[in-house]
Amino acid sequence: MKNTNVESVEPKTINLLSQVTTATIATQLYKKGLKKCYLTGVKPLHTSTPSFVAPAYTLRNIPMRDDLGDMSILANPEYPQRYAVEKTPIGHCLVNDTGGNLIAGTMGDILIERLRVRGVTAAITDGAVRDSGDIETIDFPVYCGSRAAPASVAELYAVEVQVPVGCGGVAIFPGDIIAGDKDGVIVIPRNLAEEIAEDAPEQERYERYVLSRVQAGDSITGLYPSTEESRKRYQDWEG
Amino acid sequence: MKNTNVESVEPKTINLLSQVTTATIATQLYKKGLKKCYLTGVKPLHTSTPSFVAPAYTLRNIPMRDDLGDMSILANPEYPQRYAVEKTPIGHCLVNDTGGNLIAGTMGDILIERLRVRGVTAAITDGAVRDSGDIETIDFPVYCGSRAAPASVAELYAVEVQVPVGCGGVAIFPGDIIAGDKDGVIVIPRNLAEEIAEDAPEQERYERYVLSRVQAGDSITGLYPSTEESRKRYQDWEG
Amino acid sequence: MKNTNVESVEPKTINLLSQVTTATIATQLYKKGLKKCYLTGVKPLHTSTPSFVAPAYTLRNIPMRDDLGDMSILANPEYPQRYAVEKTPIGHCLVNDTGGNLIAGTMGDILIERLRVRGVTAAITDGAVRDSGDIETIDFPVYCGSRAAPASVAELYAVEVQVPVGCGGVAIFPGDIIAGDKDGVIVIPRNLAEEIAEDAPEQERYERYVLSRVQAGDSITGLYPSTEESRKRYQDWEG
Amino acid sequence: MKNTNVESVEPKTINLLSQVTTATIATQLYKKGLKKCYLTGVKPLHTSTPSFVAPAYTLRNIPMRDDLGDMSILANPEYPQRYAVEKTPIGHCLVNDTGGNLIAGTMGDILIERLRVRGVTAAITDGAVRDSGDIETIDFPVYCGSRAAPASVAELYAVEVQVPVGCGGVAIFPGDIIAGDKDGVIVIPRNLAEEIAEDAPEQERYERYVLSRVQAGDSITGLYPSTEESRKRYQDWEG
Amino acid sequence: MKNTNVESVEPKTINLLSQVTTATIATQLYKKGLKKCYLTGVKPLHTSTPSFVAPAYTLRNIPMRDDLGDMSILANPEYPQRYAVEKTPIGHCLVNDTGGNLIAGTMGDILIERLRVRGVTAAITDGAVRDSGDIETIDFPVYCGSRAAPASVAELYAVEVQVPVGCGGVAIFPGDIIAGDKDGVIVIPRNLAEEIAEDAPEQERYERYVLSRVQAGDSITGLYPSTEESRKRYQDWEG
Amino acid sequence: MKNTNVESVEPKTINLLSQVTTATIATQLYKKGLKKCYLTGVKPLHTSTPSFVAPAYTLRNIPMRDDLGDMSILANPEYPQRYAVEKTPIGHCLVNDTGGNLIAGTMGDILIERLRVRGVTAAITDGAVRDSGDIETIDFPVYCGSRAAPASVAELYAVEVQVPVGCGGVAIFPGDIIAGDKDGVIVIPRNLAEEIAEDAPEQERYERYVLSRVQAGDSITGLYPSTEESRKRYQDWEG
Repeated sequence: MKNTNVESVEPKTINLLSQVTTATIATQLYKKGLKKCYLTGVKPLHTSTPSFVAPAYTLRNIPMRDDLGDMSILANPEYPQRYAVEKTPIGHCLVNDTGGNLIAGTMGDILIERLRVRGVTAAITDGAVRDSGDIETIDFPVYCGSRAAPASVAELYAVEVQVPVGCGGVAIFPGDIIAGDKDGVIVIPRNLAEEIAEDAPEQERYERYVLSRVQAGDSITGLYPSTEESRKRYQDWEG
Repeated sequence: MKNTNVESVEPKTINLLSQVTTATIATQLYKKGLKKCYLTGVKPLHTSTPSFVAPAYTLRNIPMRDDLGDMSILANPEYPQRYAVEKTPIGHCLVNDTGGNLIAGTMGDILIERLRVRGVTAAITDGAVRDSGDIETIDFPVYCGSRAAPASVAELYAVEVQVPVGCGGVAIFPGDIIAGDKDGVIVIPRNLAEEIAEDAPEQERYERYVLSRVQAGDSITGLYPSTEESRKRYQDWEG
Repeated sequence: MKNTNVESVEPKTINLLSQVTTATIATQLYKKGLKKCYLTGVKPLHTSTPSFVAPAYTLRNIPMRDDLGDMSILANPEYPQRYAVEKTPIGHCLVNDTGGNLIAGTMGDILIERLRVRGVTAAITDGAVRDSGDIETIDFPVYCGSRAAPASVAELYAVEVQVPVGCGGVAIFPGDIIAGDKDGVIVIPRNLAEEIAEDAPEQERYERYVLSRVQAGDSITGLYPSTEESRKRYQDWEG
Repeated sequence: MKNTNVESVEPKTINLLSQVTTATIATQLYKKGLKKCYLTGVKPLHTSTPSFVAPAYTLRNIPMRDDLGDMSILANPEYPQRYAVEKTPIGHCLVNDTGGNLIAGTMGDILIERLRVRGVTAAITDGAVRDSGDIETIDFPVYCGSRAAPASVAELYAVEVQVPVGCGGVAIFPGDIIAGDKDGVIVIPRNLAEEIAEDAPEQERYERYVLSRVQAGDSITGLYPSTEESRKRYQDWEG
Repeated sequence: MKNTNVESVEPKTINLLSQVTTATIATQLYKKGLKKCYLTGVKPLHTSTPSFVAPAYTLRNIPMRDDLGDMSILANPEYPQRYAVEKTPIGHCLVNDTGGNLIAGTMGDILIERLRVRGVTAAITDGAVRDSGDIETIDFPVYCGSRAAPASVAELYAVEVQVPVGCGGVAIFPGDIIAGDKDGVIVIPRNLAEEIAEDAPEQERYERYVLSRVQAGDSITGLYPSTEESRKRYQDWEG
Repeated sequence: MKNTNVESVEPKTINLLSQVTTATIATQLYKKGLKKCYLTGVKPLHTSTPSFVAPAYTLRNIPMRDDLGDMSILANPEYPQRYAVEKTPIGHCLVNDTGGNLIAGTMGDILIERLRVRGVTAAITDGAVRDSGDIETIDFPVYCGSRAAPASVAELYAVEVQVPVGCGGVAIFPGDIIAGDKDGVIVIPRNLAEEIAEDAPEQERYERYVLSRVQAGDSITGLYPSTEESRKRYQDWEG
C-alpha cells in the first residue's frame, strides 16, 4: 500500500495558525487569490468540539457495491479505512473523503478513540459518523457532514490513502494544512501555509482592535477595513 | 376508520433493545441482509432528547390542496392526525409520514404533551415540528426533520392511520420496532426484532471490551473486528 | 443611495407580538389567507439565540463576479452592505437577502457587534455568518442559514438597501414586521401587523389553557380546536 | 383488495378539458383559489408524447426493504403494482406514487403496452420508467420524473390502490381529473371539473384572439388581461 | 418607474460574438480571470432553439405573498413584468430573474410572441415558461430552467426592471452581453465585451483547425493547447 | 503515471451484452444480489446518442483549487485528462469521474472527436460536456450529467487514471463492463460479465415473447413473470 511520507510544515507554523480563526485564514487565502478552500457541509460534531490545526492524511472511499464484500473486509489490516486509523501520523488530521455520503457512519467511537490514543490531532469527513453520542464524550475534534447509524461498509468502500482527494467540494492533498472551528473547516495549501501563518495573526490582532473600538461606540467607517489613519491609531493600541 | 390491532413484540424484546445503540442495531440488521432501515434526515429535536425503543403506530399525510378544507377539519375527532394522537397505544411510537415536508410543523407542543400524558413512548416524523421551544421543555422523545412555525394544515392533509408508510426513505409497517438515539432513528422489522434483541447486547458488550482495550493502548488490528484470539481474551474480561 | 423612510408600526404592536410565538403568528396569518410567510432554512444561530420582533430594513445581494472588485470595495461607506450596518434604524431588524448562498459568511462578529451597539434589534439572513463562535458570545439575535468562514465578497455583491427582497423564499418589504424564535423566522406584512397583534395573544392564552387541561388529563377532542363548550369553561379559567 | 368504484365525471367534461392546455387549466384553478395542483418534476417522456385528460386510478408505493421479498412478489396477481395494471379502468389514467424515487424504473414497456391494449388512457408517475427507448415507440402518453434501468422492486414496494396519494407534491384522489401536455401534469379535483370545463375553453379562445392581435402588432396593454373595450372588440372576432 | 437608458456595445461587437460558441466565450472570460459567468440550470427550451447574442434588459421578481394581489395586478401596464415585455429595447435580451422558481411559468406564448413582434432578440430566465408547446412553434430564442403550467402570479411578484440581478447564480447588469447556445447561457460584462469579441473568433478558428487535424488522425498532444510549432503550421491553414 | 494493463472480457461477451438493454442487465444483476450498479443522473447527450457496451478506462478528477494552475496545465501530455484521451484503449469506454460537477464542461468536441478517431467506443461522465451542439454531430456515444460552457480547468483537476472511481454514485473499477442506452448507464462488475452475458439474451427473448402476447391481448397475469405454463407455451414460440 502506497504511503508516501509527505513532509509537512514546521510546528511553529501550526502554532501560529492555531491562534487564528478559519474566517481569518479564509480572508488571507482570498487575498492570495484562493477562493475555494472552505469545505461546504462539514461542521463540528457538537457544540463543544475543539478547534484544531493539523496536516492532512487522506483516505479515499468510493460507493460500496454488493460484490465488493461485507463486514469481513474490515478484518484486513491493509483495508485502507483500518490502515488509515493505524497509520495517520501523530499530530496529523485524518481527512476522510466519502463523496458526501450521509447515509452511513464512516467512523464510530472505537476508531475515533484509537485515533485519539495514537496522538492523531483530529478527524474530518464530508460523510457522517456513527456512535455519535459516545464520540461526544471523547475529547477529540471530529468535523463531519452528519450523524448516521449504519456501518461504513453499508455504503462506502475504502480504496486508497495519501492521494489527493475532494472533501466538502475542496481539493485536499496529503500534507495540506487543515483548520477547524465553529465556522467549519478550511484547507491551506501546504506551500502557502508559512505565508498565511505569518500574516494571519496580525490581521486578527487588528480585528480585535476594531472590535474594541466598535464596543466603545466607533463606526466601522474608516475603521473596518482599515485606513491609513485607523492604522496609525492602532499602532498605539495596547490591547 | 381502520385501526388494525397489531400485535407487537414482548416487553422483554423492547427492554433488550433499549440497552443498545442504533448503530449496533444497524450492524445486526446489516448482518441479516437489511441495509435500508435507517431514516435519513430524522434527528433528535435537541441535545437532550431521550433515546427510546417502541413499536410503531403509523399516520400518513399527503400534500394539502386548497379545496380540502382549512383549520376547521381539525375539529373532527376522526381526522387522522387528531385520531392518531388520541389512539396511539400506550408504549408505542407515533410515526408521522409527511413525505419529508419541512415547511409546516406537523405537530406542536399541545399534541406532544397529550401523547406524553397518554403514555405514548415517542413521536417521530420526517417532517418538522412547531412550538419547538416549548416541546424542548417536555420530557418526551421527539425525532424530526426540522422545526417550522406554520400549522400542519398549511401543507399537509392526514389520510390514514395504521397503514404501511415511508418515513425518511424507509418502509415502516404498524408494529415494526422503532429505535432512536443521537445517531437518529432506525426501524427493526417486527419479525426480526426478537433475533436482533438477542444478538445485539452481546455485540455491544464486545465493543465495550474493545473500547477498554483501545483506551489501554491496543491497536484495533486483530481486535476489531474480532479474531479467535481476541474472542478468547474477551471471555476473561469482567468489564 | 435610496433610503426611503418607511413608517412602520406602533411600539405597542411590537410589544404585543413579542408575547407570542412564531407558531401563533403563523396560525393568525393562515386564518387571514396568508400561507407563505415563513422563511425556510433560516434558524437561530445557536441554542440561546434570543427571540425578537422588529420592523425590517432590507439589504439585497447578487452573486459576486470576478470583475466587480475585491475586498477594497468594503472601504466605501456607500457600499450597501457597510451602509446597511450603519443605517439600519434603531429597533429594526436587518434583513440580508443573499439568494440563499451558504458558502460565504455574509456578516461577521464585528458587523454584528456594530449593529448591537447601534441599537439595532436583530439580524436575519438566508445566507451564512462567519466568526460564528465569536457571534455566539454577543447578546444579539442572529438568524441564518448556516455558518461559513469565507468573507462575503468571495460570493456576494451588495447592490441595494430598502427594496423588496426575497429571503428564505418569502417576500419581505421594508417596514414589514419580522419575528424570530426557536421555530425560525416569520414575516408579518406591515398592514396586517396591528390586526395580528390584537388577535394573537388571545389565541396564545387559549392554548395555555388547553395545555393546562391536557396536563390535567383531558383529551384534545372538543378542546383543541375549541368548541363552544370549551370556550365557556375557558372563560372561567384564571391561568 | 380495496378497489372502490369511484364515479367520475361525464365524458363531455373530459372532451371539453381535452381542448385546452394545462396552463389554461392552471389559470382556471388559480381563479378558484387552488394554487397547488401542478405536479413538480413530472414531464412527458419524450418530445412526441401525446397530451391527455383522464380520471385518476391511484397506486401507492413505499420504499422497498430487504425483508419484503424479491422479484417473486411480482408473480402475485394481487400485488398492487400488477393489480393496478390489470384493473385501471378503461379511459382512466394510472397515477403511480413513488415518493419521487428516480433510481428504479417503476414501469417498463410491457406494463405500458398492457395498459394501452386494455384501453387505459395514460400513465403518470413521479418516479422513473424503464425500457424507455421501447416505450417511446408505443403510442401512449407516459409522464414521469426520469428514466432508470433498475426494476421497480429494487427500490419500491407497492402497497395500495385507489387511496389518496401525493404525486409530484400534489394530492390526488381516485377519480380526480388528470391532464398532461408539454408543460407537464395538472390535477383538477373531481368536484371542480365540470366548472373548469365550462370556463376554460372560453379563456383559451380569448387567448387565441389575443395572440392574433399580438401577431398583428397590438400591444398587450389593454388587451391581456382583457379590458371592457378589448372584450367588445373580441365579440366581433371570428377567429 | 426607473428605466435607465443603458448604452451598450456596438453592433459590430454583437456580430463578432455571434460567430463563436458560449464555450469559446467561457474560455476567453476564464483567461481574463472571470470564472463565474455561466448560468447554471438555464437551457434552450427545445432542440431547435436558436442561438443568440444580445445586451441584457433585466427584470427582477420576488416570491409572491398572498396579500400582494392576484391576477388583476397584470392589468396594470406599470407592473414590471408587463412593463418589461413592452419596454425591452429592440435587439435586447429580456433577463428574467425568478430566484430559480420552477413551479410557475414566468412567461407564456403571448408574452413571448409580443417580444418577438417588437423586435426583441431573446428571453432568458432561471425560472420556467408556460404554454411551452406553443412557444416551441415561435421562432424566438427562449432559454429557461424548466416548463410549468401555473401562471407567474401564483409564485412570483415582479418588482423592478433594469437593476442588477442574479440569474442562474450569476450577476447580470443592464447592458451586459448575453449569449446562448446548446451549452446554455453565458454573461459577458459589458466593459469586457469588445475585448472578448476581438479575441474569440481567432480562438474558434484555431479550434476548427485543431478539429480538422484530429479528424485527419493527429494526436492532441502538441496541438491542443497550441505550441509554437502547431501555431506555425496553423498559419498556413486555409480552412 | 500508473496505467495498469487491465485484462477485460472476451469480445464475445461484449457482443452478447450489446444485444440486450440496460434494463435487462439491471434485472440480471439484481438476481445476483447487486442493486447499486445503475448510475444516477447520467443520460445520453441527445435523442440519437447510440447505445454501447465496453470495458471501462477510468479518469479521476478532484475539485480545482486556485493554486493548482490554469489552462497551461493542459499542455502537459501527462496531465491525466489529456493522457486519458490519448491512452484509453481501442474498444474501451472512458469513464470520467467528476464528483458530479455540472458547472464546467469536462470534455468538448475536440477531445470527443479524438476519442472517436482513436477507436475508443464511448465516453461517460457524471459531469457536463461542452461544445455540446458540435458533439451532437459526432457519431459517438456520450453519456453525461448535463451541458456546460466553462472549460474543465475552471472546476476540475484531473489526478489519476485507471483507479477505482465513483461515477453517478456507483463504484467502477478499470475493466468493469459499462453499458449505455436510453435508460442511462449501468456497470457490470468484470467477473460477473460472462455470466450476465449468458443469461441476459434469454431473458430478453422471453420478454419479446411476452410483449407479443400482450399485443395479442393476453393479461400479464401468469405471463409476466413467467409461470411453468407460460414457459411451456414460450418454448413453441418462433418469434
